[in-house]
Amino acid sequence: MSTQSIAKQFVDLCNQGKNFDVMRTMYAPDIVSVEGDGKETVGQGPVIKKSEDWVSDKAFNGETCDGPFFNGANPDQFVVYFTLDVTPKATGKRITLKEVGVYTVKGDKITREQFFYDGEH
Amino acid sequence: MSTQSIAKQFVDLCNQGKNFDVMRTMYAPDIVSVEGDGKETVGQGPVIKKSEDWVSDKAFNGETCDGPFFNGANPDQFVVYFTLDVTPKATGKRITLKEVGVYTVKGDKITREQFFYDGEH
Repeated sequence: MSTQSIAKQFVDLCNQGKNFDVMRTMYAPDIVSVEGDGKETVGQGPVIKKSEDWVSDKAFNGETCDGPFFNGANPDQFVVYFTLDVTPKATGKRITLKEVGVYTVKGDKITREQFFYDGEH
Repeated sequence: MSTQSIAKQFVDLCNQGKNFDVMRTMYAPDIVSVEGDGKETVGQGPVIKKSEDWVSDKAFNGETCDGPFFNGANPDQFVVYFTLDVTPKATGKRITLKEVGVYTVKGDKITREQFFYDGEH
């Protein structure tokens, strides 16, 4: 499959709220996930666990995924813009989080994701 | 100045519609600009000319710039999400273009910009 096909499948599933299906079916066993602070998590299981932990202390009201976006100089990458509507349990206050994800594809699987955002997410 | 300061100045000016002021004052003389098809334009003058050419065949109705966004693993970079509201003169039909810009900062100047989008822009 092309990077484009994989990227469109990714965005379609995300816009259906199926983020964990994406992680379970499209992520490589040795995926590297890089959060905004630069911290790396390695491996499909640990990366899924990281997301489970992230959602555990908030209500997830929905999300939109814009893209995918491409650049010909990096044919193995695609970019997605996320708008996340969440209510942290600690505050009970509904907020919108925005972030950009840069994904790398090798052998029909996503091998790296790097998130760009501002402040705590 | 930090990458963060430069990035916030960039977004502030863009949200005031001052994109050409950004290019004239914040771009390095030898900036490299990479369009979605991977084509590179080198040098502040040629990069400004490229943007002048781009706007010349359309009405520019406005834009929003979301961000800046950061990742600690790439401390010299920031990311901006653009939503561009334009009317190409060829069609007269108002459209919205979305793209992600990845910017690299060195010595207080922007030395590289790389745009990710889908289709023709």
